[in-house]
Amino acid sequence: MIDLPHIQELIQPNESKIVFLVVDGLGGLPSTTTGLSELESANIPNLDNLAKISATGLTTPVSPWVTPGSGPGHLALFGYNPLKYTIGRGILEALGIGIEIGDRQVAIRGNLCTVDPNGIVTDRRAARIPSKQSGPLIKLLDKIDVPNITTSVLPVRDHRFVLLLQGDHLGENVTSNDPESEGLALVKSIALDMDSEKTAVAANIFIEQAGRVLSNSQSANMVLLRGFSKLPTLPSMSNVFKLNAAAIAAYPMYRGIAKLAGMKVLPTGESFSHEVDTLESHFDNHDFFFIHYKPADAAGEDGDFEEKIKALEDLDKLIPRIMDLNADVLVVAGDHSTPSIMGSHSWHSVPLTIHSKLTIGDGVPSFSEKSLSQGSIGRIDATDVMGLSLANAGKLRKFGP
Amino acid sequence: MIDLPHIQELIQPNESKIVFLVVDGLGGLPSTTTGLSELESANIPNLDNLAKISATGLTTPVSPWVTPGSGPGHLALFGYNPLKYTIGRGILEALGIGIEIGDRQVAIRGNLCTVDPNGIVTDRRAARIPSKQSGPLIKLLDKIDVPNITTSVLPVRDHRFVLLLQGDHLGENVTSNDPESEGLALVKSIALDMDSEKTAVAANIFIEQAGRVLSNSQSANMVLLRGFSKLPTLPSMSNVFKLNAAAIAAYPMYRGIAKLAGMKVLPTGESFSHEVDTLESHFDNHDFFFIHYKPADAAGEDGDFEEKIKALEDLDKLIPRIMDLNADVLVVAGDHSTPSIMGSHSWHSVPLTIHSKLTIGDGVPSFSEKSLSQGSIGRIDATDVMGLSLANAGKLRKFGP
Repeated sequence: MIDLPHIQELIQPNESKIVFLVVDGLGGLPSTTTGLSELESANIPNLDNLAKISATGLTTPVSPWVTPGSGPGHLALFGYNPLKYTIGRGILEALGIGIEIGDRQVAIRGNLCTVDPNGIVTDRRAARIPSKQSGPLIKLLDKIDVPNITTSVLPVRDHRFVLLLQGDHLGENVTSNDPESEGLALVKSIALDMDSEKTAVAANIFIEQAGRVLSNSQSANMVLLRGFSKLPTLPSMSNVFKLNAAAIAAYPMYRGIAKLAGMKVLPTGESFSHEVDTLESHFDNHDFFFIHYKPADAAGEDGDFEEKIKALEDLDKLIPRIMDLNADVLVVAGDHSTPSIMGSHSWHSVPLTIHSKLTIGDGVPSFSEKSLSQGSIGRIDATDVMGLSLANAGKLRKFGP
Repeated sequence: MIDLPHIQELIQPNESKIVFLVVDGLGGLPSTTTGLSELESANIPNLDNLAKISATGLTTPVSPWVTPGSGPGHLALFGYNPLKYTIGRGILEALGIGIEIGDRQVAIRGNLCTVDPNGIVTDRRAARIPSKQSGPLIKLLDKIDVPNITTSVLPVRDHRFVLLLQGDHLGENVTSNDPESEGLALVKSIALDMDSEKTAVAANIFIEQAGRVLSNSQSANMVLLRGFSKLPTLPSMSNVFKLNAAAIAAYPMYRGIAKLAGMKVLPTGESFSHEVDTLESHFDNHDFFFIHYKPADAAGEDGDFEEKIKALEDLDKLIPRIMDLNADVLVVAGDHSTPSIMGSHSWHSVPLTIHSKLTIGDGVPSFSEKSLSQGSIGRIDATDVMGLSLANAGKLRKFGP
């Protein structure tokens, strides 16, 4: 939507407040035993009531058949064309562990792996070596020196780590050394453009050194690097929409994405109830609040149907505190669906409610995939949710005479 | 849809007739007391019956969150991409008072205003001075001479007028002299490209002269000019769709838009029943009739819920006369919603019915926002309504082998 040439000239700032709740992995699919989805199974009276009094619909995150990652899922909701504005895998991994990244850095996602004496990859994930065992190995990697470059290696979880390269003129267009299949030899990382040659040279030196410092380890004796990426430059949604936007998220990755989108990240605690505390205490200071709820996605990803139901019920209990703030616009959306029966993100459309004085109370009976699909908004692109929120907040003027 | 590269090669002209009724500001929102929208509150048995036997849905005028003006709202229904084909504010104002505009003219929207002795704007609308008082002032403005340019000034209503500049090489890219806020000094109109310099010079001379001829007036002693625009060139829908298209509209602005779109404007009277007379008497001579109903929008803009109900009921009474013509295709659409509770145009999707031998009688219970949303067309872009009308009229052949 930021692509739309007219959005900026339509913006008319005002005092009204938007609370934009993103329930990660909100949508689901029916259980094969009950025929009911997680939302249909959960006892969520507050969300059900919200559905009744809101304009409701479903969002298409990227396209009807694209399963989005967290990056495009959120960027689309914030109004960015997710096919145009992308966040590299290395950067997203770094954001996920809360690292501050600068312009002179390239972030790379790393795996510990095993190779045989001939350099043939035998396990691309080193048997998912647990963090306790991988920690000391990652400390060894962190000590590697590459000439003219500052390197640092930070643990993520199990076999995964982030490698940061810092220096001048480091491009990001470098290929992985991962043969992508076990039984094949490591490949050399190469630069895809001239600006990235220094990065490729540094990566290959690092890989060689990694083989040396890990040579005595049984569990993992090599690294695979991929997702070379630099910080993307996104237009700031605070500027484009003339909002004083704040983000409240317990998980670092979502704070990172929000910061890239130009929001002010508010410090908060580790649970959603801490997030709601933060929303309440900062409510007077901003006109847009992105607040993120993670547990629904986490349970869905674990394939735990009952746990996802519980996550939705836990969310429901806190909805009254959010509604009591009487924001001019309250949006409940999801970045993508995460059906428990799939144990992963999916392409399915995602429940949406928008509540304001100017929404038709659609009167749908409950907050569920099927029920919300009958509402007045219908199926819209996720990139249109921001515009609809702004329209309901009175922050958009008429287009054309 | 005129953007669609294939539309022209798909056109197969035939004898069938399309009546395309545009109910201005058709959609609404529920009353806060009854919870029912204007359409839900109105007694409209003929429209309800039409809904039952038609294919039904909702249209998105420009995007799910854009509130369209009359220009983009109508152009979209006629198949034009409203972001690509635009009508300037000056031109639309001139069309609204029924002026014929030529290629060598620039139309400008003017306000009478007041300034203090230092040139500070004190009232941008001169207290909305009524037409009776503004008339003599506008006559004074009409006598202003600008070298090498023919100027004319025509009253619109109250403080509003249209200034027409006529001459060679008059571009339209000129900024307003309106500081857009009271308490600020007038700004100089400037040309944004070389082709518009002559226009800017003429505008500034006119403004200076206006200050002189109005200097003795207490009620308004200056003018604000904006919306400098020339006649846009739109592809003719009569040519593109191979239609012999006619327009019937009591209000000049809609006649003007129809003419820009390449329709033949039929003379008609001042009320919708006169329009239906015109439709009946010309029914044999054309294969496409745009017929425009204004009162629903006017009542909505006035924020008069009851009056909008009455406007819809008045329309309903004339539906049988239109249906008795047995057009092959009868479309009832709206250019945008105008909810009475907002007192303005809005972004909400707009009711649509299409009736032909080839439409599914959706059997929805009534002609209302909620009811029509459940029909077989679903939500479509307004730019697709023309194509759907042509398809139902048998005027589009198969695409591809």
